[in-house]
Amino acid sequence: MRHPLLIPDLRELIRDGELGGLRDYLSEHHPGRVAELIEDLEDDEGDALFRVLPARNRAEVLSYLESNRQVKLVEVMPAPEAAELLHVMSHDERADLVNRLDEEVLDPVFPYLAQAEREDIRRLASYEPGTAGAAMTTDYVTLPPHITVRDAFDRLRREAPDRETIYYCYVVDHKRRLIGFVSLKRLILSRRSAVIEDIMQREVISARVDEDQEKVARQIDKYDLLAIPVLDASDQLVGIITHDDAMDILRQEQTEDILAFGGVSRDSEANEESYWTSRIVEAVRRRIGWLLLLFIAGTLTSRVSKFFHGVTPDLRDLEIYVPLMIGTGGNAGSQTVGTIIRALALGEIQGADGPRVLLREWLTGLLLGILLGGIGFIYIDAIHRSAPFAAVIALAILFICMWSNIVGAMVPILARRFGIDPAVISAPLISTLVDATGLVIYYSVAILILGKLAGGGVIP
Amino acid sequence: MRHPLLIPDLRELIRDGELGGLRDYLSEHHPGRVAELIEDLEDDEGDALFRVLPARNRAEVLSYLESNRQVKLVEVMPAPEAAELLHVMSHDERADLVNRLDEEVLDPVFPYLAQAEREDIRRLASYEPGTAGAAMTTDYVTLPPHITVRDAFDRLRREAPDRETIYYCYVVDHKRRLIGFVSLKRLILSRRSAVIEDIMQREVISARVDEDQEKVARQIDKYDLLAIPVLDASDQLVGIITHDDAMDILRQEQTEDILAFGGVSRDSEANEESYWTSRIVEAVRRRIGWLLLLFIAGTLTSRVSKFFHGVTPDLRDLEIYVPLMIGTGGNAGSQTVGTIIRALALGEIQGADGPRVLLREWLTGLLLGILLGGIGFIYIDAIHRSAPFAAVIALAILFICMWSNIVGAMVPILARRFGIDPAVISAPLISTLVDATGLVIYYSVAILILGKLAGGGVIP
Repeated sequence: MRHPLLIPDLRELIRDGELGGLRDYLSEHHPGRVAELIEDLEDDEGDALFRVLPARNRAEVLSYLESNRQVKLVEVMPAPEAAELLHVMSHDERADLVNRLDEEVLDPVFPYLAQAEREDIRRLASYEPGTAGAAMTTDYVTLPPHITVRDAFDRLRREAPDRETIYYCYVVDHKRRLIGFVSLKRLILSRRSAVIEDIMQREVISARVDEDQEKVARQIDKYDLLAIPVLDASDQLVGIITHDDAMDILRQEQTEDILAFGGVSRDSEANEESYWTSRIVEAVRRRIGWLLLLFIAGTLTSRVSKFFHGVTPDLRDLEIYVPLMIGTGGNAGSQTVGTIIRALALGEIQGADGPRVLLREWLTGLLLGILLGGIGFIYIDAIHRSAPFAAVIALAILFICMWSNIVGAMVPILARRFGIDPAVISAPLISTLVDATGLVIYYSVAILILGKLAGGGVIP
Repeated sequence: MRHPLLIPDLRELIRDGELGGLRDYLSEHHPGRVAELIEDLEDDEGDALFRVLPARNRAEVLSYLESNRQVKLVEVMPAPEAAELLHVMSHDERADLVNRLDEEVLDPVFPYLAQAEREDIRRLASYEPGTAGAAMTTDYVTLPPHITVRDAFDRLRREAPDRETIYYCYVVDHKRRLIGFVSLKRLILSRRSAVIEDIMQREVISARVDEDQEKVARQIDKYDLLAIPVLDASDQLVGIITHDDAMDILRQEQTEDILAFGGVSRDSEANEESYWTSRIVEAVRRRIGWLLLLFIAGTLTSRVSKFFHGVTPDLRDLEIYVPLMIGTGGNAGSQTVGTIIRALALGEIQGADGPRVLLREWLTGLLLGILLGGIGFIYIDAIHRSAPFAAVIALAILFICMWSNIVGAMVPILARRFGIDPAVISAPLISTLVDATGLVIYYSVAILILGKLAGGGVIP
């Protein structure tokens, strides 16, 4: 419950049927807050609260409710009321909601909507999920180039109630091709008699309807835009994507990165699914691929073990520290890959920086290896009372840290070079990659140092 | 080079000293694009381009340039020009720039600035990094409650050129306490004679000056705001944070999450540092903590190995598959922890969902374990021609998958319960946690199955 102080008051107003008081109370709050209150109340109380709201507020509040709740509220509405709600909703959210409603609910509602609105809903619902077209809305303001600022203000005043934003106005020619852009700030600062054509900005940052929505959202972020216009193949303006939708897209994509880094496959369809709505077999399907691949790679590590068992003295003490060796390599590699993915995402590392990055990570690995190796030497010497064995552990750790850092830096940079999103490189992938090679390093060091001593008998 | 087609034209204009042409050319482009052009040109060409811009454009373009370039451009400016630039810059970016400039550069510039501006710069620079105060700007519009909409428009027209946004206006009383809010859209839709007090919204979503900037940015995201007002302890309005700054904050924080998931310590001071500007010893410092902790935990895994070496038959084949066992556990655990961190970040999992999550992840682990264990059985049986040994591997994988999924789900949920940000739970931490326990499972299964057979001699 996010508003514990308001809920008892609200309950009393609802129980007493004080609708006028309720309406006043709610109109002072942000629609997002009203949505939270509805979700905090019992279902029937929340429904009653929602029904008190005037149509325009309903549309705004609805957009902040969970999609399941949206569907439930609209399903029980009389058809004319539902149509009125769809009429005032922002166009992108309207299309999303209609996509989720059943045919039986929609059939009686559609006749109450204007032809143009029905077409708008169908068009927006038809774009491929994940594209700019699917994320855009169609309730924006356009201006013809030849009218004056005064006329533009009259237009804005007429259209503002139905538009998601009036702060950016797009100038289109008679074929609806985008030819310019003017902000409301510019309009306010211009003479009332100025002509739009003369004050508009002609170079407009725009997106294509079939472009990846994440790329478009990044443009909005990069250029600090309130909205970006979306054009079709013939340069016609077909929609806009607003800053708040861009934020939602980026949040979604960035939490996906955490998934990918954990080693779970990305799946464009799964974007829409929450933790609970996706089925368990689906969760298994998304995880088994990587797990299986890493499992097969892991059997390679076993082959390395088996090979060295033939050539190293039969020292069980050596085997005891295998998990520690490959664990340290995996951990150092995961740290590096996390660091590099972040730097790539922020644009701090460019393509040509490869060698500099490798040098830097190698140096970092060297320092980490000296620290951990030193501690490892003291620890092993104290337990096993064998300086040569302690030296094996210390040197192996040093080499493994340097090697893991280099692998952790190289893999995401190479991925990028080959056109693979570095964010799909997972910590488990790097761990598994350095497992086998870490063992090679460990056993080689052991042979070099212990192999020269008499039969390996130095270790108690 | 992001604009390869424009660069040759630009070079020619710069070489020929065609300043008027250049200025027209650039005025049609978004300041962010002009900044990219400057970065793509040679340093001296870029400097020449920048000097061509009129003061207001300079300020905007500057804000899109890298901070080092900003400093370099301002350092070589005559003091009055630098002061003019600071005068028109947005207040938050001005404070950031001044923080980076040397005393010798600033001393001759400050006398050209008004007293109020000098104080504004000092005040903004004084807030703790990472707080709302440090992220906010002071160039916003306030309105008194008693004026009419007509008067408000006159005010806006006067103040707009110096304000970062005029789309949200904040209503303050005579003590500058925030008492309401009115959007430019609402102003445009209201009668010109209406009084601000009567059309303003009284419940305003606001932030405190000492609040964590990420929390404030999340409010902007959640309620789809263009800006959020920032109040001091006495409810006075002291600044606003705009949607584009919120986006920058969230991008920064979310790439930090990747770092943390990779097992690198978070550090509030490091927020400002890029991959290249932080020193290598700093990188080592941020990584050694986790690495050392996991190293110590890894020695525990070795203790487990050592213990079981005393009680299991001396089977080197058993040891060969230790890396595979602990690798599979670490990978399954990393996948789960990535999934859970994402669901927590999106609010899909609440505190009370713990048992449901555990059940779900256990089931997922069961299915994954059956699949991988089955494959493991076939593989081991084919190589070692020993059904009992293959059964050990298969059962151990099954139990390890279930166990790792439960640990991967439980740790972030418990962290949250104890007030620790689940995003600091790293993949390496989970891997290391399940390493030792995975070995216990593996050896226990081996003793149960092979221990009952004659001396373990079944394995060739």
